[in-house]
Amino acid sequence: MEINVLKKILSANDAVAEVTRNLFSNKKVFAVNLMGSPGSGKTAIIETTIKLLKGRYRIGVIEGDIFSSMDAERISILKVPVVQINTGPFGGDCHLEAGWVKDAALSLNLKEIDILFIENVGNLVCPAEFDTGAHTNVVILSLPEGEDKPIKYPLMFRTCEVMLLNKMDLRNVLKMDIDKLQQNANQINPSLTSFRVSATDGEGFAMWTEWLRSRYESFLESLELSSKTSK
Amino acid sequence: MEINVLKKILSANDAVAEVTRNLFSNKKVFAVNLMGSPGSGKTAIIETTIKLLKGRYRIGVIEGDIFSSMDAERISILKVPVVQINTGPFGGDCHLEAGWVKDAALSLNLKEIDILFIENVGNLVCPAEFDTGAHTNVVILSLPEGEDKPIKYPLMFRTCEVMLLNKMDLRNVLKMDIDKLQQNANQINPSLTSFRVSATDGEGFAMWTEWLRSRYESFLESLELSSKTSK
Repeated sequence: MEINVLKKILSANDAVAEVTRNLFSNKKVFAVNLMGSPGSGKTAIIETTIKLLKGRYRIGVIEGDIFSSMDAERISILKVPVVQINTGPFGGDCHLEAGWVKDAALSLNLKEIDILFIENVGNLVCPAEFDTGAHTNVVILSLPEGEDKPIKYPLMFRTCEVMLLNKMDLRNVLKMDIDKLQQNANQINPSLTSFRVSATDGEGFAMWTEWLRSRYESFLESLELSSKTSK
Repeated sequence: MEINVLKKILSANDAVAEVTRNLFSNKKVFAVNLMGSPGSGKTAIIETTIKLLKGRYRIGVIEGDIFSSMDAERISILKVPVVQINTGPFGGDCHLEAGWVKDAALSLNLKEIDILFIENVGNLVCPAEFDTGAHTNVVILSLPEGEDKPIKYPLMFRTCEVMLLNKMDLRNVLKMDIDKLQQNANQINPSLTSFRVSATDGEGFAMWTEWLRSRYESFLESLELSSKTSK
């Protein structure tokens, strides 16, 4: 009974996710959904990425949190358009759904955005089950979380195109096996692209922003191709 | 519609949680539900606590994970009874429910356990919504997760009696304001008891295990009192 209802909710969300993705594509907005545990560094990664890309691309941000607008306030200091979704302070939802992302996106001027970052609720489980309507999914895993996480939370690592391994600046302090972590991630998803980064000191961001540039250009090419085919 | 269904699931779980709690009480087992983000150090805290309490109390552990029995294997090395719940590898559940805890508990010899640790799925959101049938709830928050977490995930901090602030050994490496974190936690839940610990070097465990001892004794006293009243 509960399972049927959950399936119904999920497939309704899938339908809205397609509408949301089409909205983004029509406006030539490349939407990137960032997921990860609380405190993995999602907002810090968005901040550092904005600082590096700001001259080249017009960035926008949708912030998702159960409560508070702390993250949106952090982003707004960087003078990029940002909107905060709150899923509710009393037992609020543990993930973003495509309909909320669409509503939030419609409050932004999408014509003036090239790349839109969607920061999901901090949670390594549920957000992986709900398509937000983004074009790609990125998981942020921070070193202190430990090398076993891809094995324990497999759906998240299967759903994502990229893993950003964050807080590399702590590598010498923590007793952990980064190669083992990488091996665990590849075992769960052999096609996962990984970058080792530190939002604190900027390590690894040249490669990550280069990936974003290249992926954004493929996105624009795919739009041209599909507009030619539909003519 | 979805909300009604969720309410129904939650109240069904509440009923089973009471049955589960009575089962524990009848067997004089004090059940402690430990919650926290992935990688906050839940298993490490249980390990260090077991090492310190093993001579004094008979400990048992229920491990909750979406997938894998890695944590149960870590605990079993310490030669205490342990059972692993897997909520399912394909989009598995993001929390433990009371019925699963009851079934897992029934597979243990409860007569030979004084304190039972229940390690919930790594998630700072959903587990707070589901009563496991434990007698008390403890949230583990690790320093690298940041000082804003109580404000962003308020239900978790409201639901818990104790906060263990873990990874204190990283305090000199991380740029964070521990007093601000404490202030945020107290703002959300003024009656929250906090201990600053490090599962790595054992810091703060004398106070945490003293709290456990005292809380276990009040639990036994409350059982005696209610058995007298019911005579």
